[in-house]
Amino acid sequence: MLLLKIDRTSDVSAYQQVCDQVVALAETGALQPGDRLPSTRALAVSIGLHRSSIVRAYAELRALGYLEGRPGSYSTVRQRLSTTRLENTNRDIETLIDWDAITKPSICDLRERAGAETLNQGKVMDLDRLCADPALAPDDDLRRCLKTELIRTGGVALDYADTYGWHPLREVIAKRMCNHGVMVSASEVLVTAGAQQALDLVLRYLSCPGDRVVVEAPTYGMAHSLLKLHEVQPLEVPMLEDGMDLNELQRVLVKGRQRPKLIFTMPNFHNPTGITTNQQHRERLLSLCENHRIPLLEDGFEEEMKYFGQAVLPVKSMDIRGIVIYVGTFSKVVFPGLRIGWICAPREAITRLADIKHASCITGNTLAQAAAARFCAGGEFETYLRRIHRVYRRRMQMLLQALKRHMPANVYWTRPTGGYTAWLTLRDCNVAEKELLARILHAGVKVGPGHRYFAGQPESVHFRLSIACVDEDEIETACQQLGQVLGSAVSGRNE
Amino acid sequence: MLLLKIDRTSDVSAYQQVCDQVVALAETGALQPGDRLPSTRALAVSIGLHRSSIVRAYAELRALGYLEGRPGSYSTVRQRLSTTRLENTNRDIETLIDWDAITKPSICDLRERAGAETLNQGKVMDLDRLCADPALAPDDDLRRCLKTELIRTGGVALDYADTYGWHPLREVIAKRMCNHGVMVSASEVLVTAGAQQALDLVLRYLSCPGDRVVVEAPTYGMAHSLLKLHEVQPLEVPMLEDGMDLNELQRVLVKGRQRPKLIFTMPNFHNPTGITTNQQHRERLLSLCENHRIPLLEDGFEEEMKYFGQAVLPVKSMDIRGIVIYVGTFSKVVFPGLRIGWICAPREAITRLADIKHASCITGNTLAQAAAARFCAGGEFETYLRRIHRVYRRRMQMLLQALKRHMPANVYWTRPTGGYTAWLTLRDCNVAEKELLARILHAGVKVGPGHRYFAGQPESVHFRLSIACVDEDEIETACQQLGQVLGSAVSGRNE
Repeated sequence: MLLLKIDRTSDVSAYQQVCDQVVALAETGALQPGDRLPSTRALAVSIGLHRSSIVRAYAELRALGYLEGRPGSYSTVRQRLSTTRLENTNRDIETLIDWDAITKPSICDLRERAGAETLNQGKVMDLDRLCADPALAPDDDLRRCLKTELIRTGGVALDYADTYGWHPLREVIAKRMCNHGVMVSASEVLVTAGAQQALDLVLRYLSCPGDRVVVEAPTYGMAHSLLKLHEVQPLEVPMLEDGMDLNELQRVLVKGRQRPKLIFTMPNFHNPTGITTNQQHRERLLSLCENHRIPLLEDGFEEEMKYFGQAVLPVKSMDIRGIVIYVGTFSKVVFPGLRIGWICAPREAITRLADIKHASCITGNTLAQAAAARFCAGGEFETYLRRIHRVYRRRMQMLLQALKRHMPANVYWTRPTGGYTAWLTLRDCNVAEKELLARILHAGVKVGPGHRYFAGQPESVHFRLSIACVDEDEIETACQQLGQVLGSAVSGRNE
Repeated sequence: MLLLKIDRTSDVSAYQQVCDQVVALAETGALQPGDRLPSTRALAVSIGLHRSSIVRAYAELRALGYLEGRPGSYSTVRQRLSTTRLENTNRDIETLIDWDAITKPSICDLRERAGAETLNQGKVMDLDRLCADPALAPDDDLRRCLKTELIRTGGVALDYADTYGWHPLREVIAKRMCNHGVMVSASEVLVTAGAQQALDLVLRYLSCPGDRVVVEAPTYGMAHSLLKLHEVQPLEVPMLEDGMDLNELQRVLVKGRQRPKLIFTMPNFHNPTGITTNQQHRERLLSLCENHRIPLLEDGFEEEMKYFGQAVLPVKSMDIRGIVIYVGTFSKVVFPGLRIGWICAPREAITRLADIKHASCITGNTLAQAAAARFCAGGEFETYLRRIHRVYRRRMQMLLQALKRHMPANVYWTRPTGGYTAWLTLRDCNVAEKELLARILHAGVKVGPGHRYFAGQPESVHFRLSIACVDEDEIETACQQLGQVLGSAVSGRNE
């Protein structure tokens, strides 16, 4: 006979007490699989409860897998899988799926591209990191914006929101685009989780596995990862001193066997080289796209970061025939952790991209979008931009001067007019990139490894230098160290 | 001769004044394409500036596309594309790409699935919406958490962060999973932008176009959208009263020509039916997956929402052989706008999924993750859960009672033990779903259209009723209205 004790003074309901005690008896083995339980009627009488409590308890015990037998017939104790299993957890158990082995090659390649993380031993001057210096970020302003928006929107900012993005933010972005000569309305703006999601959405929209996409060589390293993920082949067109080699692009478009689905370009402060193309280059690039009817994907990731001279307007500003998809982001200027980027494109394309965004993540982070909208709509953003322009203008001047002072012969570099990065090219270098990187790191400096920005191994050794998160003193010291390491690696001598 | 006036008292630098004035002359047509500008030397003398200022101005004007000619030779005014173009913007211009026509069928289908938005005319009782009632959300607690984390982390929460997710949040999630019998550590948790991104990442990892995935019929509507996006075929296995028909699943696995890549299931408060499977069903489902070595994708989107009786543990809790990928989310319990979901899986799978996440969006929203971690680590989450359990227990009781009172014969419904949704099935219905939906909406009630949850058109007419965002009075009134509309549509009569 089942011995149960019901505590009528307890907060726990009687039926729950029956459940708990049967579970305990089964778990300790006092009740064994196959043991028959009394009928609900008999148990109700024996412990003085209403029969409905026992019926309810038995139903729950069946749901939990401790009992079996249909309602109405006798219940017996069941061999419960989890109990058996938990006893086995310490033994060696054959795993059924080799999660590494079933991984598609395109996804295996992602880890290869990412490469081994360099171990930072001790203090390292980080000329690799590419995002506005968090030390300069207007955290207090943003905190105020977050607080205001949480109160003002009364919780709406914590709810599901429009897949297209928080409307005030779309308006702010459209206005900023107009300031850059791109005359769009909010309806032509789709807010994304940073520029990376924007690029991902565009590839999902326009590319299929096996397709080709024209990229600059070198280009943004994570663009290569994204192409891998989409199983799309990069068609590399070399960067010249003034941007993508348009003669080569023309040859590719005219003579290439397979028509590319997209042309990907970064006209301003190109990553990694720092090169900005001029108006003439932009016009010709647009014409080529128009003539061949191939969409141009313009990555304006640092549109706001022109701090020497006047900005050339984005290619998108001339796009009256609706062939350019423009991608922007706040992440390279402020608060990358908010994950706010956007796509500016013809309305039909925006609708399709929003459909894809909806299917893949429903919507973005509303609160972050609301706070960013407020931050931009007030004057805080402009004030902040002026401040970081001053800082980076000085840092870039310092970098270019320090390179001139410390680089040995046969080392060449670009002279960016904004942004964060410059590009080193070593001629006649007799040491491999990997070995050089190790030596540079040993000297306390971290730089961007050149191969990261190419589909394959580049012919020359290159490094990307970023001034994003190093101060002026560090720039000077880092260049000095770098000069010493490179001096022994290139066949020329210090001038 | 070029007439320029330099204001030496201005804050604008002299070279910039030269630029601005040449641009103005070109834009107004005072300077025409082909016009030759004076040499830098001559202009410097004529306006009394240092020649270097003129050299710099001309260089900038070349970059901006207003001048052409190499440095050293004469500069001429250039026909600038943007100017020409802007004059044309009001004419009818041939767009070069038909963005709708080039859309892949799989993406076109997304919009078809989404269907036309129903126009809410006047006040509607919304039994369609599925997420915890924003009116119950502990906004003040979250505001405090946001503030604390912004200050405590000193801006780190606004920076790029670990692709795997904010570490304290991964720990909090691992602990919650352990409470549900899933013994994982933080290293087996990947934070995602809601459950939708989690499902998307899993499909990117495991499926290829043309593959098949087993889904319950009906299933989560957005799962169908996601399968469309991935060009994956759904293999529908019917839901019975106690969950997916496992005999049918077995037939599919044994006899199916094409081995499915995944089996997708929602064991708790299944969307849309509200059905919760029992322990025995879960054990058998796991065995089937193990025997056929097919990964089980378990969507525990409302794991915390059991409010009648005791929770059956997730299938993942028995997964000692590493075949289950578990997806969780906060979005159906609190703050969907924060976009926080997660994947629990064997470490090798988590690493691959993180690689895909990194390539597709770099990282998630750090601040939201930090605030959520704090919210869960304190007692606020538990207090909140107890509160909404009380609310939804009452609402669900009210719904089931109201259905009993108001539904005509030949209308059947599920009796959920938690969550937000119940599922109506109309037998012998002689009106089409679309027509019925219109009548229901006309009566002031919005429900989930049954076809949304199937790959094709279902045999019977169904509706999903969600109590997520309606109060008890609305539930009673809505059921009354619904009963009247359905009464005339099914061939039986009111009892």
